[in-house]
Amino acid sequence: MHKLVLIRHGESTWNLENRFTGWTDVDLTPTGVSQAMSAGKLLKAEGYEFDLAYTSVLKRAIHTLWYCLDEMDRTWLPVHKSWRLNERHYGALQGLNKAETAQKYGNEQVLVWRRSYDTPPPPLDAADPRSERSDPRYAGLSSEDVPLSECLQDTVARVLPFWNHTMAPAIRSGQRVVVAAHGNSIRALVKYLDNISDDAIVGVNIPNGIPLVYELDDELKPLRHYYLGDAEAAERAAAAVASQAKA
Amino acid sequence: MHKLVLIRHGESTWNLENRFTGWTDVDLTPTGVSQAMSAGKLLKAEGYEFDLAYTSVLKRAIHTLWYCLDEMDRTWLPVHKSWRLNERHYGALQGLNKAETAQKYGNEQVLVWRRSYDTPPPPLDAADPRSERSDPRYAGLSSEDVPLSECLQDTVARVLPFWNHTMAPAIRSGQRVVVAAHGNSIRALVKYLDNISDDAIVGVNIPNGIPLVYELDDELKPLRHYYLGDAEAAERAAAAVASQAKA
Repeated sequence: MHKLVLIRHGESTWNLENRFTGWTDVDLTPTGVSQAMSAGKLLKAEGYEFDLAYTSVLKRAIHTLWYCLDEMDRTWLPVHKSWRLNERHYGALQGLNKAETAQKYGNEQVLVWRRSYDTPPPPLDAADPRSERSDPRYAGLSSEDVPLSECLQDTVARVLPFWNHTMAPAIRSGQRVVVAAHGNSIRALVKYLDNISDDAIVGVNIPNGIPLVYELDDELKPLRHYYLGDAEAAERAAAAVASQAKA
Repeated sequence: MHKLVLIRHGESTWNLENRFTGWTDVDLTPTGVSQAMSAGKLLKAEGYEFDLAYTSVLKRAIHTLWYCLDEMDRTWLPVHKSWRLNERHYGALQGLNKAETAQKYGNEQVLVWRRSYDTPPPPLDAADPRSERSDPRYAGLSSEDVPLSECLQDTVARVLPFWNHTMAPAIRSGQRVVVAAHGNSIRALVKYLDNISDDAIVGVNIPNGIPLVYELDDELKPLRHYYLGDAEAAERAAAAVASQAKA
């Protein structure tokens, strides 16, 4: 039996300001730092050991992993960073306040952009200063791999190759893996692992900084999953995520 | 022309307490954190860009790299950690205060252990609780690869394969490399690059947290090297390192 631990980054400055973040590289708030440290303390207290960590190339996830590994005294673990674990790209909404956007476009339209499986938000212009196409961290990618907007379906499509070619072989070979990533890249993994429908996945909310444990059989089929620590707190935190886009 | 940047970790708690540290995994002091941040600020101000970072599996080097990358806004860079970049193993002296050890064994004996090229300090017993042979970070190594004591010659012998098989090919392929490591693993690299004699290398002192830049030709022969920032401050810091073992 394999255990895979997924952690959504702690609260970021734009979670706090209720802005659409996507690939914008904002940092953790002090609350986010303390959530990341709590995740590490919890994993240590429960006796979790890892051989390998994965994270995105966005600092809110990287820092979450760092604080978590620090608490576990496991800073020396190998860490593999990939853009494929980045948050869903939020296109032209990146930087806009969620409540303001809801007031402007209506709750319904925002909910479509947030929660429809296959409708991406309006794209960024490639020349927009917010576009990541000139960011050196993506310099090795072909420009069509650097999105201008993504629906969840698009995110799933770029996360799954990372699962299939990188994560799954590592887990199958017996490596104990922890992932610090984002609401939608974790959703992509959860959708695939639990075979969740396109309609149902949009109702699944991942709380910040609470380790989500998947127990997998030898073929990496999930046996069960659960949040570490206080289950009710995890549910309340997930419900808070769901209500963020209301005006 | 290639540029290679070497950074010795910032001041550690045992640098401050003047203890022999070796493979003991002590953390940075607040001064060490600020040295690491200064290194990052300096590299950023001078326009340095990197593709790849190397560090040891000891947290004083890892944290130095983290603070440095944070200041450069380059936390997303790939980081490769290797035990081969660890500090020289100080055997049975690990944990002892340098001045006390000098009082007990005499300045001369301590200077031999610190600065002879080929005389290792007394070895740790493999069963000593200070031995790293049960440390999970070295679990993948054969036990003879986990030293019980090292002279500088031993350190050079385990650093060079990492240079030859990992670092040099990366640099040759055009990757811009930064290394956060330790006084003696950096000495090992410097000895090899500058072809310094066994006698002369023991007089070379690497200050904490000051980026040391090597400009290398296409065959990785050094053209020149220099410390970034205030050259006199770097010299004073190196002289302070040299005087640490006096009783």
